[in-house]
Amino acid sequence: MSKGEETRQAILGKAFELATVVGVSGLSIGRLAEETGLSKSGLFAHFGSKEALEVAVVEEASRQFVQEVMVPALRHPRGEPRLRALFEGWMRWGDRPGGCFFVGASAELDDRPGPPHDALVRAQKDWIDELAKATRIAISEGHFRASVDPDQFAFELYSIMLGAHLFSRFLRAPGTGARTHQAFERLVTEARVAHNPTR
Amino acid sequence: MSKGEETRQAILGKAFELATVVGVSGLSIGRLAEETGLSKSGLFAHFGSKEALEVAVVEEASRQFVQEVMVPALRHPRGEPRLRALFEGWMRWGDRPGGCFFVGASAELDDRPGPPHDALVRAQKDWIDELAKATRIAISEGHFRASVDPDQFAFELYSIMLGAHLFSRFLRAPGTGARTHQAFERLVTEARVAHNPTR
Repeated sequence: MSKGEETRQAILGKAFELATVVGVSGLSIGRLAEETGLSKSGLFAHFGSKEALEVAVVEEASRQFVQEVMVPALRHPRGEPRLRALFEGWMRWGDRPGGCFFVGASAELDDRPGPPHDALVRAQKDWIDELAKATRIAISEGHFRASVDPDQFAFELYSIMLGAHLFSRFLRAPGTGARTHQAFERLVTEARVAHNPTR
Repeated sequence: MSKGEETRQAILGKAFELATVVGVSGLSIGRLAEETGLSKSGLFAHFGSKEALEVAVVEEASRQFVQEVMVPALRHPRGEPRLRALFEGWMRWGDRPGGCFFVGASAELDDRPGPPHDALVRAQKDWIDELAKATRIAISEGHFRASVDPDQFAFELYSIMLGAHLFSRFLRAPGTGARTHQAFERLVTEARVAHNPTR
């Protein structure tokens, strides 16, 4: 990494942290200048506009998600164990102040078409495809039934995580973590072949 | 209804319509004055403040939800048929421009503590309790297994609807309606007793 890239990376790390708390829209170059101690003109030189900064933050969130959730899961055996590792990593990812960046940001950008919205849709579709891929591997490894629809499985798994986000963050419902795990187990159990070797 | 109540009801209907599109925060007494042709001072006389207006809109949304989703479901036989009617009504409710008012508003009010936030939490908890109650009835009618946890069932059903909202509105994923129905059927099928009389 060049010095310039390092600086940009450090700024983005800070911007991402800030955005999980104040929201993507709450992020401003002025606010970021305060947080980083850099000049507004210096930040403009890095990002050009608030919109470009927002896109960069969504991409930074994806980069961190890959690092924190997807890469560690690859160390687990293919099939159900890896899918399980993805789920556990995802739970940890959402378990920070501000909750899951992607869920919060998609509610925010829902009605705001533009490049940040598109970057976020792309990031979420990539993640949903990743979940479907992991499900497909669980089928080919003989852990899940061949009749399981990987895209349907990914939809239902994503839905559970959205439920977890709303129940824990908005409704502050006690025991949401246990409910989320139970929903995941039900989904997985139903997908399993009878002689699943991971059991 | 007195004349004053009628006027208030008409204003609230308009305010609710507006809020599903522009959001609860986007709703202002000025904007509402434009839409209704009433004076700002007249609207202030009805609601007192923007915050009180927001609370009234959340309550109006609940009132309409009860009318459109809950009351018609009561005409269906107790147990699985009624639960199914609640689900179908809920799907129709979310299938309007702006999507489900409650999902949109909870994303918006997530980080804004205060009376509108509390009214919304109350409304959603009431609905979740209603879903759990309908599940409990399905158990007592002998449609669902006694081992089904009604609160867990309500959590998973709510999660599916959140998935439907994100996939259709934000990701614009084709076939989301069919996916949502399939997830519902899986949830219900798994809860059923083997000799379910509604099949």
